[in-house]
Amino acid sequence: MENKLLIPVLLGTAREGRQSEKAAIYVSEQLIAAGFDAPLVDVRDYAVGVTTPPWIPSEAFASWKELMGRADGLVIVSPEYNHGYPGELKIVLDSLMAEYARKPVGICGVSSGGFGGVRVVEQLRLVTINFQMVPLKATIQFSNIETFESAKYDEGVKKFCEELQWMATALKNAR
Amino acid sequence: MENKLLIPVLLGTAREGRQSEKAAIYVSEQLIAAGFDAPLVDVRDYAVGVTTPPWIPSEAFASWKELMGRADGLVIVSPEYNHGYPGELKIVLDSLMAEYARKPVGICGVSSGGFGGVRVVEQLRLVTINFQMVPLKATIQFSNIETFESAKYDEGVKKFCEELQWMATALKNAR
Amino acid sequence: MENKLLIPVLLGTAREGRQSEKAAIYVSEQLIAAGFDAPLVDVRDYAVGVTTPPWIPSEAFASWKELMGRADGLVIVSPEYNHGYPGELKIVLDSLMAEYARKPVGICGVSSGGFGGVRVVEQLRLVTINFQMVPLKATIQFSNIETFESAKYDEGVKKFCEELQWMATALKNAR
Amino acid sequence: MENKLLIPVLLGTAREGRQSEKAAIYVSEQLIAAGFDAPLVDVRDYAVGVTTPPWIPSEAFASWKELMGRADGLVIVSPEYNHGYPGELKIVLDSLMAEYARKPVGICGVSSGGFGGVRVVEQLRLVTINFQMVPLKATIQFSNIETFESAKYDEGVKKFCEELQWMATALKNAR
Repeated sequence: MENKLLIPVLLGTAREGRQSEKAAIYVSEQLIAAGFDAPLVDVRDYAVGVTTPPWIPSEAFASWKELMGRADGLVIVSPEYNHGYPGELKIVLDSLMAEYARKPVGICGVSSGGFGGVRVVEQLRLVTINFQMVPLKATIQFSNIETFESAKYDEGVKKFCEELQWMATALKNAR
Repeated sequence: MENKLLIPVLLGTAREGRQSEKAAIYVSEQLIAAGFDAPLVDVRDYAVGVTTPPWIPSEAFASWKELMGRADGLVIVSPEYNHGYPGELKIVLDSLMAEYARKPVGICGVSSGGFGGVRVVEQLRLVTINFQMVPLKATIQFSNIETFESAKYDEGVKKFCEELQWMATALKNAR
Repeated sequence: MENKLLIPVLLGTAREGRQSEKAAIYVSEQLIAAGFDAPLVDVRDYAVGVTTPPWIPSEAFASWKELMGRADGLVIVSPEYNHGYPGELKIVLDSLMAEYARKPVGICGVSSGGFGGVRVVEQLRLVTINFQMVPLKATIQFSNIETFESAKYDEGVKKFCEELQWMATALKNAR
Repeated sequence: MENKLLIPVLLGTAREGRQSEKAAIYVSEQLIAAGFDAPLVDVRDYAVGVTTPPWIPSEAFASWKELMGRADGLVIVSPEYNHGYPGELKIVLDSLMAEYARKPVGICGVSSGGFGGVRVVEQLRLVTINFQMVPLKATIQFSNIETFESAKYDEGVKKFCEELQWMATALKNAR
């Protein structure tokens, strides 16, 4: 049990009525089934304000910092808003730096339409490289989230978990 | 007087101690000197929360919506955080849609280092195209903002204002 | 007849067996039906080498330069190769500059998979803004191009043509 | 000797008069001095045509394929053309796939102006992630290349080599 890789699954939107929650719950469950320690975490719990510079200690960020400090990687499940990321997700991500280094990040896009949020995945890859993270090629792209059917994603999840396992292990062994 | 083009200058960070404020004040002043109606506006005044979906009416967004509805274009002055945009800026931008259509947007990047925020300009261009805005090629890139010297930017501002004037007029005449 | 807007439709891949040709022919035909002068042009005719700097006059680029000098805008139909654009397309695009200025560009993505080349659209938007072009929000996204069925795209084409017409006219009137 | 990491340094432009050659020679020399087997290779040797699909065997790509098959990573030194990559570089990169997997890529940007090609670095990061490569956070950004002075880059090179060494070793041990 204690050897499990810790990979938090971060739900990237705080909006009321958010549809991406379905995808994030699914991803967390699938990662747990695949043997990861993959707690679902929520930007609502960390993005409590917009004026505090992240380098000033605050209670709100303390648990996020502690979690990512222990983590072996990160999975982000994020809707695509106007081809980019939700602001509240960026506020949370920008609040840390050293805790991310040399850890893999798997990014899952969510959209109401048919393109699975692939553009927000691109923008987040560029952001996370600046954290010295390793963005995986593997993604899960949730299209038409209003009518979410998990069965469509089972094969993609398998590949995603394999790449995450490989990369998280490779980097952990070297850190 | 009543024929002036209305181009709000949006300061894109809400952080305490924000350095970009110097650049935003300068841009607003320069645009006013060039003949625009270019009030400085602040994401602090609009980004009051992270959970309200933008399509739900709120007092906070009403003035932003009213302003952009009347505007002939927009200038954004934004720092680059981890190669992307501040979350609070994205929250504000995502809160409107129709008000932006067929209007130009000039994007000015700000950075502590030497690259003038050119990467956040790229990410914001992609976001604003989805608003049906017209991103200008002209930008003003503020490097080393801690030691801001306005004289370095005067020539760039001139070119920026000319392109903004041309495009805002072309689109206004056609709308 | 002489009042038609000239909008070349550039097929962005030179590869043998290219599937995007179907999409480019379709787009050209639809634009012609909508009242544009929209000749199909081909990167094969312009990308004749990789070592000549574009600022050195060559027979190969002369007709491309002449065409874009007269044009009122440009439509690019490009496959997505590894989330980016084909090299031969970039060579052709990089060969001009002033001829593009203040003209609209509509970018249509093509892919074998289900995401319609939306990522190459993003990368090309950033390139074409540096030409001082105006990238349209409207795109046509051709998914699963091996089994191309034009009927699926008719509605998108209509919207695309309307936005192209509006923007090309607005800019032409102002140039 | 046989334990050295093989990291080819790919010069990404084929243009006559290319200034980036100075940067690529410098990077190759510095990597060799740091203990890598880092031969300078040239897109001119691989990008011999624009119509051959990369999956069709050709003499031109055989040595590139053989080299990357053996390599432990890749360094790209590329000028920024209109915010993107040279076409000939993309043609060469697109010609392989499996040979790149699970290897690091360090991307160095070159520009005539002051921004060190940071935008082409961003576009290439997205392309190389699709090769299942690991883009390093560390880059070397060559500004004002016409007046290249190597001393300005020595510190950046040191950091670049350290991250490359760490990541190439971590991934090699796991492959």
